[in-house]
Amino acid sequence: MVRLKFSIELAYQVADAGCDFVFNIHAAQTRQQVVVYETLGISQVLQPDIYTDAVSHNRYLRFHAAPGPLTVSYAATVDVHHYRELPDNLSEIGVLHLPGQVLPYLYPSRYCQSDRLHRLAVKEFGHLRQGYSRVQAIRDWVNQRVTFTPNSSTGTTTAVDTLIDEAGVCRDFAHLMIALCRAVNIPARFVSGIDYGADPALGPTDFHAYVEVYVGHRWYLFDPSGTAIPMGFVRFATGRDAASAAFATMFGGVSSSAPVISIEALPDDNGNLVLPEHLAEALSTAGLED
Amino acid sequence: MVRLKFSIELAYQVADAGCDFVFNIHAAQTRQQVVVYETLGISQVLQPDIYTDAVSHNRYLRFHAAPGPLTVSYAATVDVHHYRELPDNLSEIGVLHLPGQVLPYLYPSRYCQSDRLHRLAVKEFGHLRQGYSRVQAIRDWVNQRVTFTPNSSTGTTTAVDTLIDEAGVCRDFAHLMIALCRAVNIPARFVSGIDYGADPALGPTDFHAYVEVYVGHRWYLFDPSGTAIPMGFVRFATGRDAASAAFATMFGGVSSSAPVISIEALPDDNGNLVLPEHLAEALSTAGLED
Amino acid sequence: MVRLKFSIELAYQVADAGCDFVFNIHAAQTRQQVVVYETLGISQVLQPDIYTDAVSHNRYLRFHAAPGPLTVSYAATVDVHHYRELPDNLSEIGVLHLPGQVLPYLYPSRYCQSDRLHRLAVKEFGHLRQGYSRVQAIRDWVNQRVTFTPNSSTGTTTAVDTLIDEAGVCRDFAHLMIALCRAVNIPARFVSGIDYGADPALGPTDFHAYVEVYVGHRWYLFDPSGTAIPMGFVRFATGRDAASAAFATMFGGVSSSAPVISIEALPDDNGNLVLPEHLAEALSTAGLED
Amino acid sequence: MVRLKFSIELAYQVADAGCDFVFNIHAAQTRQQVVVYETLGISQVLQPDIYTDAVSHNRYLRFHAAPGPLTVSYAATVDVHHYRELPDNLSEIGVLHLPGQVLPYLYPSRYCQSDRLHRLAVKEFGHLRQGYSRVQAIRDWVNQRVTFTPNSSTGTTTAVDTLIDEAGVCRDFAHLMIALCRAVNIPARFVSGIDYGADPALGPTDFHAYVEVYVGHRWYLFDPSGTAIPMGFVRFATGRDAASAAFATMFGGVSSSAPVISIEALPDDNGNLVLPEHLAEALSTAGLED
Repeated sequence: MVRLKFSIELAYQVADAGCDFVFNIHAAQTRQQVVVYETLGISQVLQPDIYTDAVSHNRYLRFHAAPGPLTVSYAATVDVHHYRELPDNLSEIGVLHLPGQVLPYLYPSRYCQSDRLHRLAVKEFGHLRQGYSRVQAIRDWVNQRVTFTPNSSTGTTTAVDTLIDEAGVCRDFAHLMIALCRAVNIPARFVSGIDYGADPALGPTDFHAYVEVYVGHRWYLFDPSGTAIPMGFVRFATGRDAASAAFATMFGGVSSSAPVISIEALPDDNGNLVLPEHLAEALSTAGLED
Repeated sequence: MVRLKFSIELAYQVADAGCDFVFNIHAAQTRQQVVVYETLGISQVLQPDIYTDAVSHNRYLRFHAAPGPLTVSYAATVDVHHYRELPDNLSEIGVLHLPGQVLPYLYPSRYCQSDRLHRLAVKEFGHLRQGYSRVQAIRDWVNQRVTFTPNSSTGTTTAVDTLIDEAGVCRDFAHLMIALCRAVNIPARFVSGIDYGADPALGPTDFHAYVEVYVGHRWYLFDPSGTAIPMGFVRFATGRDAASAAFATMFGGVSSSAPVISIEALPDDNGNLVLPEHLAEALSTAGLED
Repeated sequence: MVRLKFSIELAYQVADAGCDFVFNIHAAQTRQQVVVYETLGISQVLQPDIYTDAVSHNRYLRFHAAPGPLTVSYAATVDVHHYRELPDNLSEIGVLHLPGQVLPYLYPSRYCQSDRLHRLAVKEFGHLRQGYSRVQAIRDWVNQRVTFTPNSSTGTTTAVDTLIDEAGVCRDFAHLMIALCRAVNIPARFVSGIDYGADPALGPTDFHAYVEVYVGHRWYLFDPSGTAIPMGFVRFATGRDAASAAFATMFGGVSSSAPVISIEALPDDNGNLVLPEHLAEALSTAGLED
Repeated sequence: MVRLKFSIELAYQVADAGCDFVFNIHAAQTRQQVVVYETLGISQVLQPDIYTDAVSHNRYLRFHAAPGPLTVSYAATVDVHHYRELPDNLSEIGVLHLPGQVLPYLYPSRYCQSDRLHRLAVKEFGHLRQGYSRVQAIRDWVNQRVTFTPNSSTGTTTAVDTLIDEAGVCRDFAHLMIALCRAVNIPARFVSGIDYGADPALGPTDFHAYVEVYVGHRWYLFDPSGTAIPMGFVRFATGRDAASAAFATMFGGVSSSAPVISIEALPDDNGNLVLPEHLAEALSTAGLED
């Protein structure tokens, strides 16, 4: 078990008409990720609403902010219990045997146009032995082909764009990997969160986007950007792509500053400190029904 | 209440490797749409699986078919209870007051790139009085701008393509209307089904795609293609766009013939025959929690 | 006749491997635009090559620059003789009667996908009386639909993007107007240059992109961005779109500063000072064979 | 020298309003390709116009056809003199040393978005030794990646689409190869014509699209589709892509049948019959100034 303590501070300047916000900045509460402490601070006096989606466990924080400055701060301590498995034990699950709620992750989505990439994906990955190792091959292909390049993409950049541009940020790596997995009928989803242990050369700690792929009857973690340590991920929201799992969506005029995020690993209640590290095993933070 | 009896016959030729199928050809069971009779026939001896999504009520029929001919036939009689409301009573619901499960329908999706259309939608519809009449204006704008043109689009055609091409089929009208609604923060979703009363000039009875928009705390029916009578719709599946609500998805080599569909209106148990007709009221076939 | 005196100063920092440059910063020499004085300065000792295209009169300045700072300055005085015509006298020329060298300007190009816009253009402009007034209607449509927005587009933004985004800079306005003209079979081309009299609210004097349309057997000036005075244009290069008429193309690693441009109107040799102003007549700076 | 005799028959049904046509079906007259005989037949009494572009040698046949059936037939005998060179002798020419009229073929065009492919092309081909062999590597890459698939593309399909779809016809192979060459600063152009010796498995003889690349101070032939024998090419038109070198462009309502084309090799005046064959040498049919 890894215990991670983190804080997020988001600062906005809301324009004259006010602005509605929808955030996904709460750590998801799952069987494998236990929130042991959390606190939310909002610098305006307002009525926040938190909706928890029963299927995804995403927590949507919504409120209306008045014109002027707004600060939203969230801090939490989470215990992440990793389910570990040997990669060789994880096979792909045929379309007929997928749990019904996994089916949506087979289909193309806004930023993951798997319907355009079927032929390419079959040519590149169709001949590989099915299973976790094939997913790993897709992850490696994306990692090698795309160069991590800050500010090279925008909020409307898609997997097809990234395939052509060969540059992007973690969100773009995730979209391309997801699209390629779905193109060979492997369910894949987008995860937003933060991570412990990011390469400091990439700049200050920021939100992170990564991938979960459904093999061996469970969702397993992948980091196609190669910038982080999967064992250090904290899950906020999952979705078919960034369109359903953005950390913040604003409906109104607003300007924002860069988020300020800090994260550290803590000892557990018995005083044992487990630090995230790269492992040979496959890791999952999802229960069988997540 | 409208009682509709229909039958669908789908014929395929499955290639040598066999093929997995996922169908959405069952009428949805909702509080407003009651399936009074149904029957499913499959010409091969196989084990079909039917998964009903708890949130959408979509019923996914899945099976593996062996090489050779395959016929799938479904027939049903459904009672559609229409909730009617005066358009003037239906206001838009702010982002903060939407039920949590409606939120996904605010966001862009594969074929409905509302994130690209915000500026255009605000210019065209931003100044209109909010409410059902604004949604109707979007529906009319799409209907007038796009020309119904068989075979003018493909399975990867998007709302942006349709906006540029100004031609399409019912699926394309639906995608463009959905994208424009979401671009001004009105939740909208894609519905696939069949309909009673389609214009026979458009060819034999076929599947239909239409739109539901969330106003006044309920999902209301819209037919941007203008080819059908909303009161004659039978709902099969809803989703963020055609990517999650296709009537058939095939994972393998297969060739298919045109579907053969027939539909008729029947008298109810008291012998009253209600025929679908164009109405001035807003219509919904969704309950408050659907 | 308008006499304009201007200077351009471009500053670069060339990376370690050196860089090849191709510039289009010389005023074109045509029958209607006479260069009475010009001077070119380059801060490195090198061998520049100037190639003048016989058909377009574009002058391509090419050289290899060594690593380190590089300044290119060009100054000139040009006499622009405007051919004026009453708009009502200018009719469209049928495809069969166009001079052969005008034909390329009928076809789609990199940033002007007229082949995608035929249906839309016919619907919007197909019913209008042919002639200069129809071109003016296209220009006005683009001007009203698109909002001038600095930094809203990139070097790969196309007319279709601008149609969807409804935002852009002068280059984007030009591309969309050109694409729509060609979509209804009116030859149109891209012009890069600078202009006297730009709206100072838009920032410091910069390069300008505008449009020439072939009606009444001559190329006439249009400014779809509405930010400038056509009578104050100085033509550098013409082409099918920005891909063939960029003011600078670099083949190698280089960083650049904002160009520093100044322009003023001078009295002619007889002491008459003509200032560019908005005119009701159609203006051309092209001879019959240009 | 190869002597080829061919005939083309095009059949149209012109709609009620009549139709303007622009054809590129005349064999180009160049120093290396001599038209020894040709004849043009048009089934309507009309006034055709033929414009020969001084730079490209393209011959544009234009006329207005009345409603009703129209047949256009062209037959010719051409002597194609191939300039041959050893691939190792052909080096790439730096931007500064290209003839001015070759510069346009460095820039992106409608269907060859080299500006989007720079990074990808550098990664794939940037490390290769410059020269003919690098161009051959690009040709082979395209040939291996894309599968020849009739009816898989349309008139608006671009190089980026083909890169994603990995399927196309000769036009699509040509566009992708051209875009990749330009992306690493090698001038490349589109050629339309017909060819002797096409693989009969691909169907009846049809128009062909291929590529010329500028290396060693001359334009050399490449056939990325791999369906033909470069030595058997007859050049009709060259251009930056299919937008400027289509064999037929129609301005009006018209339906067309498949072209009927036949081609054979003839003995020359001395009775020597040279049949096109695959050669190890580089071939050019362009003179130094073409």
